[in-house]
Amino acid sequence: MDSTQKISHLALDIGGTLIKLVYFSANGDYSEESRNGCSVVHGKLCFAKFETRKIDDCLEFIRFNILHHSGVQHPNGAAHDKLYVKATGGGAFKFADLFKEKLGILFDKEDEMHSLVGGVNFLLKTVPREAFTYLDGQKEFVEIDHNDLYPYLLVNIGSGVSMIKVDGDGKYERISGTSLGGGTFLGLGKLLTKCKSFDELLELSHHGNNRVIDMLVGDIYGGTDYSKIGLSSTAIASSFGKAISDGKELEDYQPEDVARSLLRMISNNIGQIAYLNALRFGLKRIFFGGFFIRGLEYTMDTISVAVHFW
Amino acid sequence: MDSTQKISHLALDIGGTLIKLVYFSANGDYSEESRNGCSVVHGKLCFAKFETRKIDDCLEFIRFNILHHSGVQHPNGAAHDKLYVKATGGGAFKFADLFKEKLGILFDKEDEMHSLVGGVNFLLKTVPREAFTYLDGQKEFVEIDHNDLYPYLLVNIGSGVSMIKVDGDGKYERISGTSLGGGTFLGLGKLLTKCKSFDELLELSHHGNNRVIDMLVGDIYGGTDYSKIGLSSTAIASSFGKAISDGKELEDYQPEDVARSLLRMISNNIGQIAYLNALRFGLKRIFFGGFFIRGLEYTMDTISVAVHFW
Repeated sequence: MDSTQKISHLALDIGGTLIKLVYFSANGDYSEESRNGCSVVHGKLCFAKFETRKIDDCLEFIRFNILHHSGVQHPNGAAHDKLYVKATGGGAFKFADLFKEKLGILFDKEDEMHSLVGGVNFLLKTVPREAFTYLDGQKEFVEIDHNDLYPYLLVNIGSGVSMIKVDGDGKYERISGTSLGGGTFLGLGKLLTKCKSFDELLELSHHGNNRVIDMLVGDIYGGTDYSKIGLSSTAIASSFGKAISDGKELEDYQPEDVARSLLRMISNNIGQIAYLNALRFGLKRIFFGGFFIRGLEYTMDTISVAVHFW
Repeated sequence: MDSTQKISHLALDIGGTLIKLVYFSANGDYSEESRNGCSVVHGKLCFAKFETRKIDDCLEFIRFNILHHSGVQHPNGAAHDKLYVKATGGGAFKFADLFKEKLGILFDKEDEMHSLVGGVNFLLKTVPREAFTYLDGQKEFVEIDHNDLYPYLLVNIGSGVSMIKVDGDGKYERISGTSLGGGTFLGLGKLLTKCKSFDELLELSHHGNNRVIDMLVGDIYGGTDYSKIGLSSTAIASSFGKAISDGKELEDYQPEDVARSLLRMISNNIGQIAYLNALRFGLKRIFFGGFFIRGLEYTMDTISVAVHFW
């Protein structure tokens, strides 16, 4: 990192699985302009993430890459006695003592939902082409009329899933959620496929075929559908249901097929519960976000199909 | 089987995982009484089940235990040319040719949902103490006012789950369902624990502790809850979420803990989706049924907790 960089505005979101970190890095030729009476600093917003279980790496990163450039010294030779940093997520509580002890950082705790909703509202109103629909491989940006944004359903897919009804700036309520989230995908995925990371598991799932292990309506009906009640022969009747009767062991399945079934199971389920909650509260728009999505096409496609199916 | 028994009224439900079979076995001293102008035959209704993948066992059972006692001969020396048997489930389509060829049995196909709803309505109206609530280990029978039975939500948990809004005799609609059902529990359970049967897996789950592998709210918040949004520290934030960060392999977990997490994940999810659908259609009663339940206390308890939670 360029030693002339000046780092400021560090903030942290410490979740169950990932620590997300954002900070502002001013340009080397650090200068403030005045424009329309406002002071303008050139630079960029930087994002970083660490696995929560590797929190020591995160502490080291902050110590060497941020504190050393922030004009704030390590507490052993502190310029300020206390350095307050905005922090949210469960880890803002769980790791407060650790950050204080190791880095002399005190957390200025912000509520997680409040930060999330504030951030999403800001993005939706400020950044053009921030929200989009995704179906059948087609990404389509949604024009949002600022006067017709609320109410909407925000589905935040992290380790678990929170569903939040957003009625306005700072007006929101967590109405539902599910424990089947990104953590379930990766947790079960690791146990079933030996994959080490989320991206590895997701990549694997692209090459898989869920029909190998899911029981389809056609498997039960002998290739025909159950059209009387609107179930096509390719609809999944029972996720992982074929594993019952195949007489196969885990080792006999291809990891990519297992990964695909897992992804479809979890994405479908999130889509369905989101849809049911949107119906329940009469919400016409659902925004999906969180690390599980991250612009990943297959995840988005599966969720879209699920919402359209129901 | 007593050779004086007379078997009649065979009917089959051939599902994705199990074949359910019912037949009437008249008493050895076969006699018909006339009572109030009705002919009365003493005997008993017998139930049997086979795994669908072991359909040959089922064919043998029918050949030796039922056809030989039914007054109907094997088609090679058939008393009747054709023997019609009521059959439902996807297998009534898938295995029609097999039954015809091997046993000379022709299926008189009945629609699956129609049979299910008819059966449940009959039981609820005819058999006292047929329905009950189950919570905190307490079983409480529900008094059902026949004039206030409809509408209700029927949640049938087989390999997959069907949710049916029942509005009256023969009046019903499949409104929802989920692919996360009994087949998912057993399918994933087999892959993760090497259990061979549903009962074995369920027994295992009784002795397990889901907190070993599920990520709880308290795990994220450092033991405290997130009471602001109504999440206690023991609520499951992410099913199987701890498997991400433990650095453990599948072999390092106790199978009973894995089985418990799996059971809670699937039961909770079914309870939640059922609850959301009941809300959506304003249904005040939900009846859960199917092989996944079967009066199994822990399954029922988890589903009840899920419905109450949401």
